[in-house]
Amino acid sequence: MPEHAAASRFRLSGLCFLLQILTILLFAVFVRYSPEGSPWRCSQWLNCSWRNQEAGFQHPRFRDVHLQALLGFGLLVAFLGRSGPGSVTISILVVAFAIQWAVLIQGFFYFFLNGKIHMGAQSMVSADFCTAAVLISTGAVLGRVNPVQMLLLTLLGVTLFTLNEYILLDLMGVNDSGGSLTVHTFGAYFGLMVSRILHQPHTDNGKEQQDTGRQPDVFAVVGTICLWIFWPSFTSATTAPDNAEPWAMLNTYFSLAASTLATFVLSPVLSEENTLRVVQIQDATLAGTAVMGMAGEMLVTPFGALIAGFLAGLIPPLGFRFLTPVLRSRLKIQDMCGVHNVHGLPGILGALLGTLLTALATADAYGGRQELVFPLVAPGGRTATDQALCQLYALPVTLLLATLGGCLTG
Amino acid sequence: MPEHAAASRFRLSGLCFLLQILTILLFAVFVRYSPEGSPWRCSQWLNCSWRNQEAGFQHPRFRDVHLQALLGFGLLVAFLGRSGPGSVTISILVVAFAIQWAVLIQGFFYFFLNGKIHMGAQSMVSADFCTAAVLISTGAVLGRVNPVQMLLLTLLGVTLFTLNEYILLDLMGVNDSGGSLTVHTFGAYFGLMVSRILHQPHTDNGKEQQDTGRQPDVFAVVGTICLWIFWPSFTSATTAPDNAEPWAMLNTYFSLAASTLATFVLSPVLSEENTLRVVQIQDATLAGTAVMGMAGEMLVTPFGALIAGFLAGLIPPLGFRFLTPVLRSRLKIQDMCGVHNVHGLPGILGALLGTLLTALATADAYGGRQELVFPLVAPGGRTATDQALCQLYALPVTLLLATLGGCLTG
Amino acid sequence: MPEHAAASRFRLSGLCFLLQILTILLFAVFVRYSPEGSPWRCSQWLNCSWRNQEAGFQHPRFRDVHLQALLGFGLLVAFLGRSGPGSVTISILVVAFAIQWAVLIQGFFYFFLNGKIHMGAQSMVSADFCTAAVLISTGAVLGRVNPVQMLLLTLLGVTLFTLNEYILLDLMGVNDSGGSLTVHTFGAYFGLMVSRILHQPHTDNGKEQQDTGRQPDVFAVVGTICLWIFWPSFTSATTAPDNAEPWAMLNTYFSLAASTLATFVLSPVLSEENTLRVVQIQDATLAGTAVMGMAGEMLVTPFGALIAGFLAGLIPPLGFRFLTPVLRSRLKIQDMCGVHNVHGLPGILGALLGTLLTALATADAYGGRQELVFPLVAPGGRTATDQALCQLYALPVTLLLATLGGCLTG
Repeated sequence: MPEHAAASRFRLSGLCFLLQILTILLFAVFVRYSPEGSPWRCSQWLNCSWRNQEAGFQHPRFRDVHLQALLGFGLLVAFLGRSGPGSVTISILVVAFAIQWAVLIQGFFYFFLNGKIHMGAQSMVSADFCTAAVLISTGAVLGRVNPVQMLLLTLLGVTLFTLNEYILLDLMGVNDSGGSLTVHTFGAYFGLMVSRILHQPHTDNGKEQQDTGRQPDVFAVVGTICLWIFWPSFTSATTAPDNAEPWAMLNTYFSLAASTLATFVLSPVLSEENTLRVVQIQDATLAGTAVMGMAGEMLVTPFGALIAGFLAGLIPPLGFRFLTPVLRSRLKIQDMCGVHNVHGLPGILGALLGTLLTALATADAYGGRQELVFPLVAPGGRTATDQALCQLYALPVTLLLATLGGCLTG
Repeated sequence: MPEHAAASRFRLSGLCFLLQILTILLFAVFVRYSPEGSPWRCSQWLNCSWRNQEAGFQHPRFRDVHLQALLGFGLLVAFLGRSGPGSVTISILVVAFAIQWAVLIQGFFYFFLNGKIHMGAQSMVSADFCTAAVLISTGAVLGRVNPVQMLLLTLLGVTLFTLNEYILLDLMGVNDSGGSLTVHTFGAYFGLMVSRILHQPHTDNGKEQQDTGRQPDVFAVVGTICLWIFWPSFTSATTAPDNAEPWAMLNTYFSLAASTLATFVLSPVLSEENTLRVVQIQDATLAGTAVMGMAGEMLVTPFGALIAGFLAGLIPPLGFRFLTPVLRSRLKIQDMCGVHNVHGLPGILGALLGTLLTALATADAYGGRQELVFPLVAPGGRTATDQALCQLYALPVTLLLATLGGCLTG
Repeated sequence: MPEHAAASRFRLSGLCFLLQILTILLFAVFVRYSPEGSPWRCSQWLNCSWRNQEAGFQHPRFRDVHLQALLGFGLLVAFLGRSGPGSVTISILVVAFAIQWAVLIQGFFYFFLNGKIHMGAQSMVSADFCTAAVLISTGAVLGRVNPVQMLLLTLLGVTLFTLNEYILLDLMGVNDSGGSLTVHTFGAYFGLMVSRILHQPHTDNGKEQQDTGRQPDVFAVVGTICLWIFWPSFTSATTAPDNAEPWAMLNTYFSLAASTLATFVLSPVLSEENTLRVVQIQDATLAGTAVMGMAGEMLVTPFGALIAGFLAGLIPPLGFRFLTPVLRSRLKIQDMCGVHNVHGLPGILGALLGTLLTALATADAYGGRQELVFPLVAPGGRTATDQALCQLYALPVTLLLATLGGCLTG
């Protein structure tokens, strides 16, 4: 066993070295900073119409998104992982590599020009979104795969995420500013399929989720608070500029508040424990944000956000009670961190809600904001129904890509 | 006992459900997003002269205030609470409900127009202030009331806070940008009166504050650092735009630094322990910020902020040593988290300081800033003395409302 | 022993009181807020050309830098300190005093005018930089000196730091926006020399660094994540406005990612442990940021940042393995928190890299950005080689001042 561990350590060390050298070489050959005098603004000739933001607003948003990707998911993952601090280091390793790799891959898809990738701050924001999806995926298999497998999963996950994002956002013209589909749903189902393929019948970790001590609660508390603070910015990071943003942010806040109350409503009914665990609130918070990913900028009334958040907050307690055992016993999918309940199902709910809202969108309700929220509808090229169909088709496309990719990776 | 606990759980669950449904209904009937094209700016026809901020600055400030309300108070409360993680969940529940409720109640007072409440980002900032005051109140009774009582306390506390704020800011024209009176003093005395009414003679929790282990110190450290970082923004969140702000922020920083040193001066003299506890520094930090709530934007010299902070930093150690035992034995008020020492007295000191500064305010010292800091004085409608009297009268009004409200709620 | 402890406590109390009174008096005599209507902008007649920032950007940056100074270093120091929470309180005491003192001292150097120091937000940013350097210094001696000595060290350290910064930035015209030299290198070697002088042969604390328990890992995780999030802003806080900033930020991100991977490469080879400790990642993160301090705004290609970060990430593991024992046994320097490996050497590497880049800087590679990054080169007054020599000379000047100052202080 010791020499096996040593060999595994050296393999990890070697793989990291190889990947880093490879990345440096690829960067040296392909990546240059945007030659514009102002890297803040989206270069004119690049296809980045979906992320053209005001210069002055991009800086704080960029930081928030980065914070969110690392802190929120990293802590969630850290919390439920078996190996405690070990899983933290692996999460950080995944983040450190995924960011470099995502800049490269997304650069090839979006910013490739004259044989060079011209990158700026917006490339980093996209890379952060991608890293968030990969972190969700790793949550499904954490503690069951070794770091080397985790790095390979990152390698493939980033590539497939970018492919999916490219198909959805650029080819189909789907609105998914907060990533209900691209980040939450894709990340969750990709991770679940990998987990399914890697299923080893003799490992039974079901019990270990229960006996978390006092210590991880610190992580859960800090994580919950950080989600509350920074996720509204995450959701609204890539919305249309100026007008739509505060609505997306306020919708997300209301959704958070309602989903937290929903957990307090449902948990005492379902569980035997007397006190609510902080993790459950954290799960509700994540679900409440996942559901607002697509619909956040479309909702025009606060009570809609309250209802959506309330429904989303009901999913994780129900899911952990009824769905996770079924998944484990029937489908042989071990969902280590419950990403299906927390990210997968709320993401799908959010996508359906977004579709519904798109279908109902009329110029009356949105007024001058319509061309900001739905840039493809307003010019007359598409009707609201076409756009809604696009949004609807995007769901099976994402699920298909995620499951196929997961099988392949596994 | 088990069936009692189960009944209590179901009652909490049902109350949460009822309140959430009620809130959703009220939101559906009354609340709409501001119909303006730009929700960032304060609508012209609404009464929000006291919170008219620059569009570009509002976004980061909004996040800071939100962070402050949750993290700072939540952690303080979590720290001293008896039940540890249980109190964290209750704090989060209070925040989740108070924010929704405060948007509603404050909407009726400030933003009601044509039968609808038109809300924007500034409503959320006000709701955050209100939530902070309610969290201070819960700190006084934490661990002694059950979650159902806590929800009812939140329900009434939000309403009374809004009434008090409306009287002070809108009817009397008091300057209280950082909430020395409205947030700190009102929150502390409201909570203390509730605690007085709920007094049960047989519970003796005095000892339990001492035996906090290693774990809570993590919260205290994180809390202290967060207070240092984000409170200056909290204090200056609703000051007059542009000019006054950096002074308020810098004044708060100096006050923080001086109050921390004051704790190091006084604690070794008063206590028998050899090392200073992190909580004491946290208390001093809170006191140093509470005192700057009203006076922060009025002080024109840095050494004034140093002196005020130094005095405020002396309050918590003295209060915990001499005042809390008296409160507990004579007045039968159990101050679970020491909110009287940390919020109540420094808040009063801050209000008196603000009154003094207002009385001394002359056009010479302030120059062009006078009409920004004292909008009602500069036009000639009031003299500085009138404004000072207003500020002074605001103190007993707040105390009266807080104690009456506390008795009623209890 | 008890009465000795009591005497020491009273001496600390008295010293704090004296210093605070002294500071208040000096502030009362000398410090005034900038009389400009707009304290955000740098006053025209003051010598602050090196920190002339856009008004709109200064606010968030200011907060970030403050966060960094407190959280990043404070947590690092807290982590390895022997006395646990005790060292946290001392760190906070150092911060609280250093900020006040730095405003005074730097005011005398930079903002002195007509017998008054006119301070604004930019004074506070400078004071934060200074506090960061002092915190690094205290890291070298933490747990071995008492709080009274620590305060005296702060007193002298702030003065010497300001002297060094004044010589480098104002007299020599060196570019060091992120403080590779002024903050990291100066702080590390100043602290190391103090540690050398205070060497007591009978104390052997080498073992204690190993047996840190589960608890400090929480600090390390939070610290690492905060470094990832906020350091890029710290590095770019004082760069030339507008254009250079995003490059500095992106360079720092790439450097962080690469140095983290470097730790994963090297640590398994060097250490016997099976799992990577979070602290090691934190060290790598700090090294990766220290190396980008000077070069961050000069690098024009992302792969350069990756290579520099990778090299910097190799330093701490190698240093802890081979260099720290040599330092301890031969030179009798006890480096309590490994500041030499984490700040000293990467800072020197960053300074050399910055020199190299300056020498190679041509108008072709930089285009319109040259006069922003190198304001003294572009006007024609200096050639790139002259500027590079300046940067090179700054290194021995800093080392000399740091070691002399350290001896003197010790």
